[in-house]
Amino acid sequence: MSFASDTAVRRIARGRYDATIATGWDIGGNANGGYLMALCARALADAAGRPDPVALTAHFLAPGKPGAVSVETEVARAGRRFATVTGSLTDAEGRAIVQLLGTFGELVGAEGPERMEAAPPELPPPDACAVLPREEAVSAFRDRVEMRLHPDDAGYAAGAPSGEPRVRGWFRLPGDEPIDTLALLLGADSFPPTIFNAKLPVGWVPTLELTTHLRARPAPGWLRCAFTTRFVTGGFLEEDGELWDESGRLVAQSRQLALVPRAAREPAAPG
Amino acid sequence: MSFASDTAVRRIARGRYDATIATGWDIGGNANGGYLMALCARALADAAGRPDPVALTAHFLAPGKPGAVSVETEVARAGRRFATVTGSLTDAEGRAIVQLLGTFGELVGAEGPERMEAAPPELPPPDACAVLPREEAVSAFRDRVEMRLHPDDAGYAAGAPSGEPRVRGWFRLPGDEPIDTLALLLGADSFPPTIFNAKLPVGWVPTLELTTHLRARPAPGWLRCAFTTRFVTGGFLEEDGELWDESGRLVAQSRQLALVPRAAREPAAPG
Repeated sequence: MSFASDTAVRRIARGRYDATIATGWDIGGNANGGYLMALCARALADAAGRPDPVALTAHFLAPGKPGAVSVETEVARAGRRFATVTGSLTDAEGRAIVQLLGTFGELVGAEGPERMEAAPPELPPPDACAVLPREEAVSAFRDRVEMRLHPDDAGYAAGAPSGEPRVRGWFRLPGDEPIDTLALLLGADSFPPTIFNAKLPVGWVPTLELTTHLRARPAPGWLRCAFTTRFVTGGFLEEDGELWDESGRLVAQSRQLALVPRAAREPAAPG
Repeated sequence: MSFASDTAVRRIARGRYDATIATGWDIGGNANGGYLMALCARALADAAGRPDPVALTAHFLAPGKPGAVSVETEVARAGRRFATVTGSLTDAEGRAIVQLLGTFGELVGAEGPERMEAAPPELPPPDACAVLPREEAVSAFRDRVEMRLHPDDAGYAAGAPSGEPRVRGWFRLPGDEPIDTLALLLGADSFPPTIFNAKLPVGWVPTLELTTHLRARPAPGWLRCAFTTRFVTGGFLEEDGELWDESGRLVAQSRQLALVPRAAREPAAPG
C-alpha cells in the first residue's frame, strides 16, 4: 500500500487506461478528489509523454467508489515543450466520475526572474502541531497521508472553529514515500475544508472544480501548506491553496470552487 | 459590431458549431484569450442547455487568427443543476487553438450564508482614471472594450511601472451593450498584464491556462476589476482577478497561469 501503487494505471490501448480506486482513500465512502486527480494524472502524463501536470483542472461529476475504473485520454496538442490532454474517469458501469483537462511538461528548474509577494506559512514544527482527528469517516485516509495542523486552525474538530476560514499545516506521505508532482495534486486537496473554521451554518462543501498549478518538483520532506477562503457568496466559495517545500520553494498553487449548501454541518464532518 | 454578434456561433450538428473569429479582437494579430473563451462558451452553453459558465477553464494551444473556426463540444455529464462540457476550438485548417472544460448552470441568485474577506477595489471615478494607450497593436481592441485604469497602475505605458504587479480598473462594453456572464469571461482577460508594472526583465507573458469562476450575473454598468500577481517563480506566474459589479457584488474570480520568458519586453507591448 502506497500512494504510487494505489494510483497506478495500466495502458490497455492507445489513450485508454485501467485502474483501481483503492480502499482507504475515501472521505465517508467517496474517494478524495486529490487522490482521483492524481490517479487520472498518471494516465494523462503517460498519454502526454511528459511527467509533470503543470496546470490540471478536474470537474467532479459523481462520487468515486473503490473498484475498477478506466481513464480515457486524448491529446489535444503536443508541442515542443508542453502537451495538453483531456481525460475522463469512468467507473465499471460507465458512469462519469471526473472530467479533466491538463497541460503537462517537465518541471526541471527554469531560470529566470523571480519575485515573491508572500513567504511560506509560519508553522510550529510538525511535532508541535495538531494531529487530525481520526473520525470513523476518515479513519483509513488518516493512514494514507500525514498531516499536522497549525494549532490555531485545529479547534474546529473540537467544536471551536477559529472564525477564520483558513487551514495551515504540514503534509507528507507516510513511510518516507517521496512526493512527486502527482502527490502534490493529493496534497492540494487533503486538508479539512477551510469553511470548517468559519463559524458559518455551512455543511459539507462539495467540490465542483479544482485547478492545480505546479511550479517545481518538491524537495524531499514535509510540505508547508496554507488554504484560505476569501469569498463565500452566490452559493459558492473558493478555496486557494499554496504548497511550499522544505527548501522554501513554492511548488504548487491550487484553487477550487465548491458549493455552499444551506445544510447543517454533520457532527462528524471529516477533513 | 458588438460583443454578442462577434461571439455568435451557429449549430451545424449535434455538438458542432461554426463561428468566426472577428477582426479587431486581437492583440498584435492574435485574438484575445477572453474573447476566444467567450466565443467558445457560447457554444458550450448551448450544448449544456444552461446559460452561465459557473467554472470554465481554457488552455491556449495556438494563436487564434481572424477567420472561420469551429467548436466541437461534448457533454460529460448533465445533472439536475449543472452540466459539464468539454470543447475545442479549431481553425479552418483543423489546427487546435483552444481546449476547454466547463460546468454550466443558471446563476439566478442563490440564498445562503455570505462572508467576504475583501471589498471591491477602490477606484477613482471612471472619468478620473486613465484611458489605455492606443498602440498600433491594440488599436481596434480599444474600441471593442472600454477600460479605465487606476492612475497608480497606468504608468507602465509611459515607461514608469508602479513596481507592484497589479492592475486595477473599470471595464464595460461600448455603446451600453449589456455585460452578460459570457462578457465576464472577456473582462477577466482584457486588462494589460500585471507584470507590466513589476519592474522585471519580462517580456510578453503567454497564457497557458485561464480559469474563471462566476458567482452572479452582473448588474448593469461598469465593472470594478483588480488583477494581481504574487508569485513569479519557476518560469511561470499566476494572475488572479476579481470582478465586481456596480452593486458591489463579486461576480467573477479568475486565475491564469502564464509563461515567463526571459525576453526583452517589446516597446509597444500591448494590454
